[in-house]
Amino acid sequence: MLQYENVAWFDGSAVRILDRRVYPGKVEFVTCKTHREVTQAIADMVTQSAGPYTAAAMGMALAAHECRDRRASEQLAWLEDASENISHARPTTVSRMKIITEGCLDAARRAIEAGGDAAQAIMEHTIEANNLRYSKVRRTAKYLVDLFPDDGTVMTQCFGETIVGMMLKECRERGKSIRIFCPETRPYFQGARLTATVCHDMGFDVTVITDNMPATVMQNEKVDVFTSAADAICLDGHVVNKVGTFQIAIVAKYMGVPYFVTGAPDPGHPTVDTVTIEMRDPEFVLQAMGTRTAAQGVKGYYPSFDITPPHLVSGVVTDSGIYAPYDLKRYFENADGEFGQRGLNL
Amino acid sequence: MLQYENVAWFDGSAVRILDRRVYPGKVEFVTCKTHREVTQAIADMVTQSAGPYTAAAMGMALAAHECRDRRASEQLAWLEDASENISHARPTTVSRMKIITEGCLDAARRAIEAGGDAAQAIMEHTIEANNLRYSKVRRTAKYLVDLFPDDGTVMTQCFGETIVGMMLKECRERGKSIRIFCPETRPYFQGARLTATVCHDMGFDVTVITDNMPATVMQNEKVDVFTSAADAICLDGHVVNKVGTFQIAIVAKYMGVPYFVTGAPDPGHPTVDTVTIEMRDPEFVLQAMGTRTAAQGVKGYYPSFDITPPHLVSGVVTDSGIYAPYDLKRYFENADGEFGQRGLNL
Repeated sequence: MLQYENVAWFDGSAVRILDRRVYPGKVEFVTCKTHREVTQAIADMVTQSAGPYTAAAMGMALAAHECRDRRASEQLAWLEDASENISHARPTTVSRMKIITEGCLDAARRAIEAGGDAAQAIMEHTIEANNLRYSKVRRTAKYLVDLFPDDGTVMTQCFGETIVGMMLKECRERGKSIRIFCPETRPYFQGARLTATVCHDMGFDVTVITDNMPATVMQNEKVDVFTSAADAICLDGHVVNKVGTFQIAIVAKYMGVPYFVTGAPDPGHPTVDTVTIEMRDPEFVLQAMGTRTAAQGVKGYYPSFDITPPHLVSGVVTDSGIYAPYDLKRYFENADGEFGQRGLNL
Repeated sequence: MLQYENVAWFDGSAVRILDRRVYPGKVEFVTCKTHREVTQAIADMVTQSAGPYTAAAMGMALAAHECRDRRASEQLAWLEDASENISHARPTTVSRMKIITEGCLDAARRAIEAGGDAAQAIMEHTIEANNLRYSKVRRTAKYLVDLFPDDGTVMTQCFGETIVGMMLKECRERGKSIRIFCPETRPYFQGARLTATVCHDMGFDVTVITDNMPATVMQNEKVDVFTSAADAICLDGHVVNKVGTFQIAIVAKYMGVPYFVTGAPDPGHPTVDTVTIEMRDPEFVLQAMGTRTAAQGVKGYYPSFDITPPHLVSGVVTDSGIYAPYDLKRYFENADGEFGQRGLNL
C-alpha cells in the first residue's frame, strides 16, 4: 500500500509528486518548485484519489518556504493567497481542499505568531492530520468489512487509495477471503493501474474488467457488494465520484446488489446544488494509454465526475458507523475532532 | 460508408480482409490463403460487425477454389466441411454464420450439379445475397429513423456497420439532423474507431464517450433513443450483443430512454437457452491499444457478449416493421424470401 509520504512530499525546497498518470508502468515523480506548480500538477491529474490532499499540504509548506524571509504579515498574506490558489486546483473538490489548505494556514499562523518556522509547522501539522485521517479511515474500513460476507465478491470503482488499502488489511486480519472486480476506469485507467495493483500487492484475487462489464459481471459472478469512495458526499445524500459510479449504482440497484460509499459527509455541500462538475479536455477520451482511438474530427466529452442520487446509495460508511444517505446530519452529532467537524475521511 | 467488397473479398486465389483491429489508424488487410485461415481470422476478430458474414462467404468461395480439380462428390464433401468449419469460428454466432455458409453451399451444389464453376457461383450468390441484405437493412433503417425526433440525440453501442450507415443515409435524406453519442466499446474500441468514423465521414455530429459515461450523458445531454444491432435476437426477445449493451439498456430503462434493437429474430435461437457466450482471452482486457494497463499477476475477464432481457427492449426494428420483443414469432408470418425465413438482417 502506498504511504502518503511516497505520494507527495516536500523535501525542503521542492515538492515531489508521484506521477499516477503513468504508475505502475513507470515510477516517476513530478518536481514542483513553486506552490503554483503544485496547483498545476493537481489540475493536470499528476496525482489522484487522496494524493491531491497531501500534495496540497505540501504545496502550502512550499509556499511557507517561498515567503520565509518576508515580514510576518506578508507571509500570512502569501499563505492566504496560496491556500486560495491550491484549493481551487479542481472545481469539484474546492470544499475538501480548503479543509487541508486552511488547516495548514492555521498551523502556519500559529508558528509565525510564535516566531517559529511556518513550513516546519505545516509539515508537523500534516503528519498529525494524516495520522488522524488514517485512524479514521481504519475505523471506516472496519464498518465496511462488517458488510462483506466471509467469502464474498466485491466490486470497486476507481481508486480510493487509503480506504482500499485499509479495507484489504482489515479483511486479511479477519480472515475474510474476498475477491475483487475492478472496472478499469477510463480514461485514466485508475482501476486497472492503481486499485488492481494495490489489491494484487496485498495478496488478493483481483480481476480487472472494462467499464462496459459491471452488469454482466454482477449477473454472472455473484457480486455481493459494490463500494466506492467519493470526491464529495453532500449532506442531502448525493454522492459525487469518478464518472461511472452513477452507472454502476443504477446497475447494482437493478441487480439487488447494495452500494456502500465510504467517507464523511461534506458540510461544504449542504445539497447537490453546490456541486460543480469539472469538465476536462474532451480530447483526452479520444485516446487510450497515449494512442489515439478516434478519427480526426470526432468529438469527445469528458465530465470527471458524476452524481449518484441517495435512492441508489445503500449506506454511507464513515468512521463513526453506517448512515442512511437521508440521515447524514446525524454524523456531525457523533463525530469528534477537527476532521470530524469538517469531514475529510477518504 | 464501407462497402462489403472493401471489408472482405475473394480475389481468385485468396481472401483479403480489412483488419478492423487497427482501422482507421491503419488501413491494412489480412490475406487468407486457405478457408481455414479465414476461420482463424474471424476467430481473431480481424473483421467485426457484419464483416464476418461477408468473410465467411468469401471463405466458402476460397474453399470451392481449393477443391476445384476434384470430383463432384469430393468437392461437395470439402465444401460441407468448410461450411462447418467457418460457421463455428465464434461460438455465439454459429446460427447466423450457417445462414451464410449453407447458402453458399447450396449455390455451389447447384453449380457443381450443372457442371459449372462453384467458386463463381458462390460469388454471384453472395453479391445477390448482400444486395438483398442491403435492401432489407435499408427498410429496417426507415423504421428505425421513424422513431427519431427531427433534432434528436441518439446513443449507439459498438458497431453495426450496415445499419449505422443506412440509418445515417435515411436521416440525411429526410433532413433529420441527429447528433450521435458513441460509447467507445472496450476492449476493441469499435465505437471510437469504427462507428464514430462512419458517422463523421457521413457528416454527422458525433461524440465519443468512454464506457462509464452513458448514464451521465443520458442524464445531462437529453438522449432520445438508445439503439444497437445484435449478434442474435432470440425468439423469446433476449438480445445478444457486444458486452456493455445490457448495462446501457438497464441505464436507459432507469432514465426513461427507449432501447431499440435492429435486426431480424433468429430462428436458430428459439430461446436464450441456446446461446453460448464466447469467453475470449482475459489478457486482452489488461491492455488498451496495445499498451498494458494492469500490473502482472492481475487477472482479466472477457465475455464478448452480454444478454439483454426482453423487458429492457422497447422494440425490435426489422425490415418488416417494429415488433414487441414478446411477439417475435409474428415476424416470420410477415417476412418474405430467403433471409426473411432465416433471419439475417444486420
